[in-house]
Amino acid sequence: MLAMDPRPVGVFDSGVGGLTVLHECLVTMPNEDFVYLGDHARLPYGPRPLEEIRRFAREIGAYLSQQDVKLVLVACNAATSAALPRLQEELSVPVVGVIAPEAHAAVQATRNRHVGLLATAATVDAGRYDELVHALDAGISFHPVACPLLVPLIEGDDPYGEETERAAREYAAPLQAKGVDTVILGCTHYPLIRKIFERVFGRDVSLVFSAEETAREVAETLARKGVENERGREGVYRFLTTGDPAAFRELGRRFLQLPVREVEHVTVATLEEAAA
Amino acid sequence: MLAMDPRPVGVFDSGVGGLTVLHECLVTMPNEDFVYLGDHARLPYGPRPLEEIRRFAREIGAYLSQQDVKLVLVACNAATSAALPRLQEELSVPVVGVIAPEAHAAVQATRNRHVGLLATAATVDAGRYDELVHALDAGISFHPVACPLLVPLIEGDDPYGEETERAAREYAAPLQAKGVDTVILGCTHYPLIRKIFERVFGRDVSLVFSAEETAREVAETLARKGVENERGREGVYRFLTTGDPAAFRELGRRFLQLPVREVEHVTVATLEEAAA
Repeated sequence: MLAMDPRPVGVFDSGVGGLTVLHECLVTMPNEDFVYLGDHARLPYGPRPLEEIRRFAREIGAYLSQQDVKLVLVACNAATSAALPRLQEELSVPVVGVIAPEAHAAVQATRNRHVGLLATAATVDAGRYDELVHALDAGISFHPVACPLLVPLIEGDDPYGEETERAAREYAAPLQAKGVDTVILGCTHYPLIRKIFERVFGRDVSLVFSAEETAREVAETLARKGVENERGREGVYRFLTTGDPAAFRELGRRFLQLPVREVEHVTVATLEEAAA
Repeated sequence: MLAMDPRPVGVFDSGVGGLTVLHECLVTMPNEDFVYLGDHARLPYGPRPLEEIRRFAREIGAYLSQQDVKLVLVACNAATSAALPRLQEELSVPVVGVIAPEAHAAVQATRNRHVGLLATAATVDAGRYDELVHALDAGISFHPVACPLLVPLIEGDDPYGEETERAAREYAAPLQAKGVDTVILGCTHYPLIRKIFERVFGRDVSLVFSAEETAREVAETLARKGVENERGREGVYRFLTTGDPAAFRELGRRFLQLPVREVEHVTVATLEEAAA
């Protein structure tokens, strides 16, 4: 019999988008504890240089390690693009990201081998999806589109308004012109406007979201390493933000459909401070 | 070549729950026009006697017929339970309801042949799911649970709060005790708290929602009868309510992720008035 490991799983994102991944984790691993950190003070990550995002991700990785987590889940496509290999080198616990599971699912799903990507500018620029998709099937035509407006609209006052719908249509148009049959929604915020994408693309296009695949990856990793928590217990979760706890609570409740109770405000040390 | 039929499809529910079905219709039939009527003035239907719900449904059926719809979709499980056969007898256009597609899907999904139902009291009392499930597989053990609190909580101020979660857990408990592996969420409001149900039941229980199956049924009916609208055009939709248009707009936007623009207040004549 394997040892039980009561340590929580650490999850982070620039904002509330990663809650879509956390939700799938709660469904898959109801017996695990989770610590979720939203880096709202520095949201959005998408338009920032990769170098800067990598620094933020390393700071948060160090912070979560101090919280004694047993695995770090990077629930942010921009941070995964910018920092996954570096985090895996630096941290002693396993680090799981969100891009590989989606690339794999998209390659499985496409029939005409024209695959689109909607993501933030940072994720598109980093080119990780492109690499991973082509590593799995070199014959696929890959069409990435950067969507700078979507995260601010989704975290804003009117996520389901006409502006969001118009932006989604505009970003979709070049993919529709290329005749893609599969679109990767490569940002953890995008499932929050899933219905809008469903209407824009219709039934003939497969939409690929990372959340469920990623949750399975986390569960398998814990199981194979023998660091699961006790079966049958009910997990607890802590929510941390570098920004405004009240705003996080409101958005989290709306998007996660979970009564988010306490949200703690935290400050993440810079790499220099942490080294000092 | 078949004739094109520009008439809209009529859809009704006691409130905004039927918007989950409308959403799937918009994804499946982007070229069709829709008129959606929410009977907010008389919400909720669930706790009312079947006789009364039947009268409301007949009044709305007559109203929609006057709007020259080409099909009536009863996007409400209580109204389908109480009134579907009667509406089909009275109206000259086809009438489609939400129960048969779910019963069929549940019979397909179950492995241990223990199937649960969560629905309003009216739907449970009417016994239509029970009949339809057993008509398809007489060997299934069927376990219905009435959930009187859920619709008011979902249409209320805090749909994702602790009260909703607690209620969902309580209603789920007897089904979990029976060991069901499939649960029909037999009310069009319930997909609006889908994430809560997913967490409550976990991965091992199949949850059956009617919306997508029902949309397919409508699309096939229009196609086989040759009364589809022109391909390639963009459909328009009208929203009507017997209650407060502003409240409908707010709930519709949140739940449908659609910029609901105009909502018209309408009055539905009683059967006596209509006959006069």
